[in-house]
Amino acid sequence: MKRIIMTLAAVLIAFAANAQQSLWGNGEIVSPEIHPDNTVTFRFQAPKAIRVQVTGDFLPTQKVEVPGYGTYDAPGMADLKEGPGGVWEFTSDPLASELYNYHFVVDGLETKDPNNAYLQRDIANLMNYFIIPGEKGDLYAVGDVPHGTVSRVWYHSNVLGMDRRLSVYTPAGYETSKEKYPVLYLLHGMGGDEEAWLCLGRTAEIMDNLIAKGLAKPMIIVMPNGNTKHQAAPGESAEGMFKPYNSGSFDTTYEAHFKDVIAFVDSRYRTIKKASGRAVAGLSMGGGHSFELSLNYPGTFDYVGLFSAGLGIRRDNGAGYPYPEFYENTDEKIDRLFANNPKLYYIAIGETDFLYDSNKALREKLDAKGYKYEYFESEGGHIWRNWRIYLTKFAQKIFK
Amino acid sequence: MKRIIMTLAAVLIAFAANAQQSLWGNGEIVSPEIHPDNTVTFRFQAPKAIRVQVTGDFLPTQKVEVPGYGTYDAPGMADLKEGPGGVWEFTSDPLASELYNYHFVVDGLETKDPNNAYLQRDIANLMNYFIIPGEKGDLYAVGDVPHGTVSRVWYHSNVLGMDRRLSVYTPAGYETSKEKYPVLYLLHGMGGDEEAWLCLGRTAEIMDNLIAKGLAKPMIIVMPNGNTKHQAAPGESAEGMFKPYNSGSFDTTYEAHFKDVIAFVDSRYRTIKKASGRAVAGLSMGGGHSFELSLNYPGTFDYVGLFSAGLGIRRDNGAGYPYPEFYENTDEKIDRLFANNPKLYYIAIGETDFLYDSNKALREKLDAKGYKYEYFESEGGHIWRNWRIYLTKFAQKIFK
Repeated sequence: MKRIIMTLAAVLIAFAANAQQSLWGNGEIVSPEIHPDNTVTFRFQAPKAIRVQVTGDFLPTQKVEVPGYGTYDAPGMADLKEGPGGVWEFTSDPLASELYNYHFVVDGLETKDPNNAYLQRDIANLMNYFIIPGEKGDLYAVGDVPHGTVSRVWYHSNVLGMDRRLSVYTPAGYETSKEKYPVLYLLHGMGGDEEAWLCLGRTAEIMDNLIAKGLAKPMIIVMPNGNTKHQAAPGESAEGMFKPYNSGSFDTTYEAHFKDVIAFVDSRYRTIKKASGRAVAGLSMGGGHSFELSLNYPGTFDYVGLFSAGLGIRRDNGAGYPYPEFYENTDEKIDRLFANNPKLYYIAIGETDFLYDSNKALREKLDAKGYKYEYFESEGGHIWRNWRIYLTKFAQKIFK
Repeated sequence: MKRIIMTLAAVLIAFAANAQQSLWGNGEIVSPEIHPDNTVTFRFQAPKAIRVQVTGDFLPTQKVEVPGYGTYDAPGMADLKEGPGGVWEFTSDPLASELYNYHFVVDGLETKDPNNAYLQRDIANLMNYFIIPGEKGDLYAVGDVPHGTVSRVWYHSNVLGMDRRLSVYTPAGYETSKEKYPVLYLLHGMGGDEEAWLCLGRTAEIMDNLIAKGLAKPMIIVMPNGNTKHQAAPGESAEGMFKPYNSGSFDTTYEAHFKDVIAFVDSRYRTIKKASGRAVAGLSMGGGHSFELSLNYPGTFDYVGLFSAGLGIRRDNGAGYPYPEFYENTDEKIDRLFANNPKLYYIAIGETDFLYDSNKALREKLDAKGYKYEYFESEGGHIWRNWRIYLTKFAQKIFK
């Protein structure tokens, strides 16, 4: 018995040794603490600090004007109050159900919450997050439901001449079923990568929950990397651990290489290899890519989603681009697309999104020709909170 | 053309809006900067700070005595020097090739490096890391080689009556091959989970690199969750986003449920379904689990690896445990195991590991009976740096 106790003691000492950094300065502080009334208490231990603030999208936002492009929402800030042991504290108002980001500012120094191990990465920026339960939060949280498989897989692009990394969600039951599944190609925005829709978009959680409720069809979701100069997300290729930056592909190379993505997915997975089994959707730059793909791959996608789409960046004439044909004859391609009347052409954007006008211009063009599409306009701007909503709505409309 | 420029401007403004947090206080600072001579410059912008320090395992360690259990290595600290713009800087000595962890301490406040998006999580503790190229670093970095697939999959444990999450590495070529593959079951330590060997252990990078060099056989690596009270890593189950803590399973439930893991893997993957196609290895608690599994699943694993194994925690008599049979009659089980002479019984530990003595006791017991095993003793203690080395060595010895 003595031996057992001594050995357990040793294990605990080893734990203290291994985890010592996490024990410095935060002990057993709980932060954030989500209360039953959906108020949230933030705690931060900083005995020497003069001022401790918390900032994040859970606080009332301040509108920042961008001349010519409307406004965007900048996060508010709140002061924590110092209590015993130099533990500062702030409790929020009751919060609506949502996934929120935040960080602390200690005497002007931005710092993460050392008591919250949960971070999301947006380009080079790491943000703590928490989820308030309820209608949205329960969709974004891991449910007590059957879970799909999430894989990082590599494919070869003949067009780009490189191996590239994909994130793939296969729904619960895929591996044991003999059925063929439809595929949603889900594209990230500028600065994102194949991790963005999983991490910031909560795609696996949303789909597990929608499918379990019978609100969405079981589908494969393929999340490629939209930066054709890179093989994979930062740190995930032989390029090494570079500082993530705002790369993107607006030069026809993404559109040109996409046939390699579809060929790989159709060869690797049990897919429905026709338009009725394929959807493409994306946010911002990925919305622009989705627009281009819908025009340039006729008969490939019956369902198209433009989420805060980056339209109007491409030239109407592809001259000077590596694969000019992809940016030529837009209007004819739009006519061709809607002549095959796609089952769903979905346009969603926030009322304060700086891309609102270019999306409005597209809608007016489609309206003028009487082309059928669905439109959803949300509050807010060019933010992940909206893109999670658009995915949730779009996923319930496709393959039905 | 004007339209193009304006729209690109809009995209950049949007980027500034989205990424504003990352732009606060760090601008284009590069940290860490790894120089050709393997010195590393750390930079941190803190105009108001009085003292900025960096600490991590790249600095000479300080020995901390644990009475009765020897010493462990605590990280050293170095002072940064303030330069223009309130950017503090420290340049290290030339560093040996390795993966290193670090963080900053600003006026006593622990904080991450806002210019380094790369973090490893050890229990609840997030640590920045960087890799110095060379013999070890090149093994731990993503190589310009064919990459395996890394998946998070769910299986059902009949014994525990719950769905549980596994991390699985399948080597490059698995999906397109018709062959059957051997499986290494790789078990984490106390406080870890199914993410630990991938994140802290760099298992996918090590295996991609070893296999590409022909130094290891292509193999499937299965990384289960060793905490039988949990379905999955923190935040990855319906338990929600609890603060990661030092949970573990020393009560026979892990051993009892393991048949569910093997059955799932053999049903889901193209495996070699016999002892010659199975290895089990683990670190610390996972080393203890590997020891128990090797004793209690005769004829299942031809290759066993105990990395800094947590031995002697179990009772020699299982009385009082849910599945007492797993902890009964140890000596008879050891005799039975070595009577079938396993192809490899591998014991590795660091010379200052607090578990050194209990592993020495096992070696003496095996020596007394003339049972054959391989032993590797490294420098240092109970740390991931050693476990990456042990995996690298073990993976080259199995399935050959």
